[in-house]
Amino acid sequence: MFKAKVKPEVLKELVEIVATLVDEAKFSVEKTGLVIKAVDPAHVAMVELSLSKGGFEEYKADGSELGVDIDKTKEVLRLATAGEDISIEHDEDRNQLVFQVGNITRRMSLVDTTGMSDPKVPNLTLPVKLSVKTSELRQGIRASESVSDHIALIADPDGFEMLSEGDTDSVNLKLPKDLLEEIECKEESRSLFPLDYFSNMVKAISTASVVTMRMGNDYPVKLEFSIADGKGEVTYLLAPRIESE
Amino acid sequence: MFKAKVKPEVLKELVEIVATLVDEAKFSVEKTGLVIKAVDPAHVAMVELSLSKGGFEEYKADGSELGVDIDKTKEVLRLATAGEDISIEHDEDRNQLVFQVGNITRRMSLVDTTGMSDPKVPNLTLPVKLSVKTSELRQGIRASESVSDHIALIADPDGFEMLSEGDTDSVNLKLPKDLLEEIECKEESRSLFPLDYFSNMVKAISTASVVTMRMGNDYPVKLEFSIADGKGEVTYLLAPRIESE
Amino acid sequence: MFKAKVKPEVLKELVEIVATLVDEAKFSVEKTGLVIKAVDPAHVAMVELSLSKGGFEEYKADGSELGVDIDKTKEVLRLATAGEDISIEHDEDRNQLVFQVGNITRRMSLVDTTGMSDPKVPNLTLPVKLSVKTSELRQGIRASESVSDHIALIADPDGFEMLSEGDTDSVNLKLPKDLLEEIECKEESRSLFPLDYFSNMVKAISTASVVTMRMGNDYPVKLEFSIADGKGEVTYLLAPRIESE
Repeated sequence: MFKAKVKPEVLKELVEIVATLVDEAKFSVEKTGLVIKAVDPAHVAMVELSLSKGGFEEYKADGSELGVDIDKTKEVLRLATAGEDISIEHDEDRNQLVFQVGNITRRMSLVDTTGMSDPKVPNLTLPVKLSVKTSELRQGIRASESVSDHIALIADPDGFEMLSEGDTDSVNLKLPKDLLEEIECKEESRSLFPLDYFSNMVKAISTASVVTMRMGNDYPVKLEFSIADGKGEVTYLLAPRIESE
Repeated sequence: MFKAKVKPEVLKELVEIVATLVDEAKFSVEKTGLVIKAVDPAHVAMVELSLSKGGFEEYKADGSELGVDIDKTKEVLRLATAGEDISIEHDEDRNQLVFQVGNITRRMSLVDTTGMSDPKVPNLTLPVKLSVKTSELRQGIRASESVSDHIALIADPDGFEMLSEGDTDSVNLKLPKDLLEEIECKEESRSLFPLDYFSNMVKAISTASVVTMRMGNDYPVKLEFSIADGKGEVTYLLAPRIESE
Repeated sequence: MFKAKVKPEVLKELVEIVATLVDEAKFSVEKTGLVIKAVDPAHVAMVELSLSKGGFEEYKADGSELGVDIDKTKEVLRLATAGEDISIEHDEDRNQLVFQVGNITRRMSLVDTTGMSDPKVPNLTLPVKLSVKTSELRQGIRASESVSDHIALIADPDGFEMLSEGDTDSVNLKLPKDLLEEIECKEESRSLFPLDYFSNMVKAISTASVVTMRMGNDYPVKLEFSIADGKGEVTYLLAPRIESE
């Protein structure tokens, strides 16, 4: 059983976040809220998203798993207008999700979840923690896009840096300590990431003005931010590329 | 003889309506106003548009037929700015239409009308008549576009429904009686239409907030609406597709 | 040595003007300001741009030549926000231009200038001089684009005309004397130009509301206008096409 009502902007944010990694996802509708975990097909990145009951206008579930086509859900969202809640219900007989948007009823067949892995966020000790304005990350990404396909994230006790190096050109965004919301870093650490993944993740952050990053030296990066006015949490995990010397 | 002055927004609306079906059209400039009738090349749809003398700022004609290239007329419209009337004159010696927009003079050769058919709107008895907000039709079309290439229009005494069914998904917009401006329907009737035609027709309606539809069971649909602040009338006719059982 | 600070809108205007003709250009940074001269690869058009020291927020140079990639400079400009000056410095050791935009540092390798010609604006006596609103030129170009690949510029003592003639259609913009800012013309003169070049040049004029044109009969046209609030000057020169009779 699953029946809920949600603000279109909340569903939109959620869908955009998941869409950066997968076309179809398993929505676990627990009693206390919705949980989505997904790994991209190349196994480079992972997302874990939870939206508590309180993030919905109405919510009733008793724990089931729904295979959802993300692109189709985006289409449903295009029909919504601000201020008009979207109703979602699981029709178990027909194995469909039924969306109600205004006078429109959209029936969407669920996809098979048996092939979908149930990823576990690995237990990593990431020594660096820092919080940075989402707008700064975006600016750094935009600068990097014309220079390289990779981006290095570098932290040291004095601040945070995003660096992209091409054959002839380079670009970096340097944020000294006082431009960060928070930094915990004992020694310099640096990891290289595929720019497209990192860029898509950061672009999917729509409402959170601050992102917390956890990093290490040649280690994955974790991006943590809240959604739905704090009623939900997202963790992105992105694997590093090995830097060629 | 044909000489007229027209507001760009009126000419734009008129051109958009005709452009959904044909690239070239025969403009009949009668003493009392302009009449355009056209059938699309696949003979699936038909338009009949009339704009009375009063829909123009100035108008003089004594009954001739002008073969007009619709795309070129769109280009002329791109030169116009709101509040600046467009002058149109038939130069009979050179067989050109001469548009005057501000300081610009655009001479456009007329196209041959001999090959253009003179369609007659067939005499159909369509038992259902209903009036619906253009915005509702648009919403129903947008919802259907991701599901199927066809759309069923269904009326019964209680209301009106637009329904699209794909292989796995379906979508419908249901408008109960009280959300319609008007409905005359004795028994359920249902016809299936090609979505692209229906969509283009509805999208070409720019100023009319209400459309009157006449329908039957496996019968064509007629869309009727006014243009130019009621100074003109348009009828679209669209042939049904046979529903496969 | 070259070190400067400039408003992004000034650099943007400058870059757009040069980009109409070349992908790479030689920036001569003289003590008194910046000079750029460039010819397009087909040798049809030429630009000469000068921006005095006063057009920069800060400026220091002792006369050197920098080979600049115009497309990359456009990318740097995309990072800038209004009201935030861009710093530019020549790093002679690495032969790079170093742009500073907010917290971003963009290092760009200079391109080799040895292959770049040092065009001289030919000494032409162009008998006609007239000044026209940039917006009128734009309107005339927009009208011409759907009719022909060429545009004739025609001046006589009574005014100025832009004329495009296709196989069946034609369009002209006629500006009588009193709609011009200024005209000096003793006898009719007419030259034909490639529309794409002329269009790109006119579109690159962003702040100047008036352009001065110097023309002749089957002669090149010169477009002169100011940039950076009068702190800079641009001359475009465009070769004519021979009109086929």
